[in-house]
Amino acid sequence: MRISIISSGNVATHLAAAFKNAGHRIVQVYSRDLHNAALLAYHVGAEAINDLNHINPETDLFIISVNDDAITGMAQNLAKYKKLTVHTSGATDLKALSSFNPNAGVFYPLQTLSKNKAIDFFTVPLCIEGADEDITHKLVELAQTISNHVYRVDSEQRKILHLAAVFACNFPNYLYSVAQQLLVKNGMYFEMLRPLILETAQKVQDHFPIEAQTGPAARNDENTINAHLQMLNGETELKKIYTLLSQAIIKNDNAGHGA
Amino acid sequence: MRISIISSGNVATHLAAAFKNAGHRIVQVYSRDLHNAALLAYHVGAEAINDLNHINPETDLFIISVNDDAITGMAQNLAKYKKLTVHTSGATDLKALSSFNPNAGVFYPLQTLSKNKAIDFFTVPLCIEGADEDITHKLVELAQTISNHVYRVDSEQRKILHLAAVFACNFPNYLYSVAQQLLVKNGMYFEMLRPLILETAQKVQDHFPIEAQTGPAARNDENTINAHLQMLNGETELKKIYTLLSQAIIKNDNAGHGA
Repeated sequence: MRISIISSGNVATHLAAAFKNAGHRIVQVYSRDLHNAALLAYHVGAEAINDLNHINPETDLFIISVNDDAITGMAQNLAKYKKLTVHTSGATDLKALSSFNPNAGVFYPLQTLSKNKAIDFFTVPLCIEGADEDITHKLVELAQTISNHVYRVDSEQRKILHLAAVFACNFPNYLYSVAQQLLVKNGMYFEMLRPLILETAQKVQDHFPIEAQTGPAARNDENTINAHLQMLNGETELKKIYTLLSQAIIKNDNAGHGA
Repeated sequence: MRISIISSGNVATHLAAAFKNAGHRIVQVYSRDLHNAALLAYHVGAEAINDLNHINPETDLFIISVNDDAITGMAQNLAKYKKLTVHTSGATDLKALSSFNPNAGVFYPLQTLSKNKAIDFFTVPLCIEGADEDITHKLVELAQTISNHVYRVDSEQRKILHLAAVFACNFPNYLYSVAQQLLVKNGMYFEMLRPLILETAQKVQDHFPIEAQTGPAARNDENTINAHLQMLNGETELKKIYTLLSQAIIKNDNAGHGA
């Protein structure tokens, strides 16, 4: 397939490389910043542009991977080419595209992607939606050329996934930083916690989180919980977080959710 | 070294196997439940006992790995043998042992260990404390026979580590279960989030968490935060957690902690 990528950000970079590796042709990379466009374009053998007037219509697919609030504007600009056009956003409805061009879909990678961090793209879950069944089918087939984990997900489900990803990725990462700060303040190093962090994530690859829950709250061990709160004296916010999450774990365990 | 293990729990099971593999001799495994003692003892070629009167004094080291609130009682019972005695608890002071027997130390594995989950013990950080410099030295040498990550940590630091582990392991695991529940309620599967969870933990193996922080709060993206809170309507507790952690991420980013 001939594919043009609108953006040179994190998602665009990984998608372009994955498509290139799977034998597709990357026609153009667009970025407002020509330098950024050129860096990615060079890597995937494409033309770099920073002017939408230079769009090459000889393409089969536009992938819009710009910030959420710029998607609609871009969709309006590209509608005149009447090509299959997808966005890659978890939080954005398909309508952001399909109200300008019925030949629309979504190609949402459910993964934290950074330009400077390599990843085996075949492990990345791709959540696909098409404006009609034909489009969905075509996009699923395309997705399967670069990933082993392709899901059909509608716009409402995709928003739930995006919310769930905040709980599964953004919040845990913040809690890692809290742990780091506690260590550094007491003359220790984040290095000491890295194996624990990795093993915690590895455990839920084969098990459900409720089966892996350990710690003072899971045991309802009031002595340790109180000792920990004592140690957090003076850290009002961390105390609140500790209390709220501990209470939630105690309730969750009692409710026995885990289906 | 000749080693006796007091408990047949998760930590005891992994420590006994690691020592056995490193060529040490496991003399006895004690558990109140003889069946549990026998399961572990059989595995490591030791004798199983469930009666403290049957303790074999021909050992060099007692490892007390019982629940925190049972450590003192066990230390009192074993003091008469005057052997080197350690506990494995993150939250318990060395004094819980050393007030009965000066030949005391701590051997705290900073990892989430389950009997039925294999782990390469050489990756497990071991936090060592001894009642004097000789004991510390002896325990560090012993620890190095089973782990590549051996740290000297005093009782105050160990309590901080234990607290940090709650933030780095127990709380993230709970948040994984929240994400799972959101998916299941909306006809999706936890499977979809597993790669994201693993990659989030893998990213901080080479980077600091503050460098890896992504998501709506890190971007201070109020539209998405408000949309997420809207989706959590009716889930009072999750809304509180979402709000508190998002505010903390916004503040943390502004403060630029990351040392």
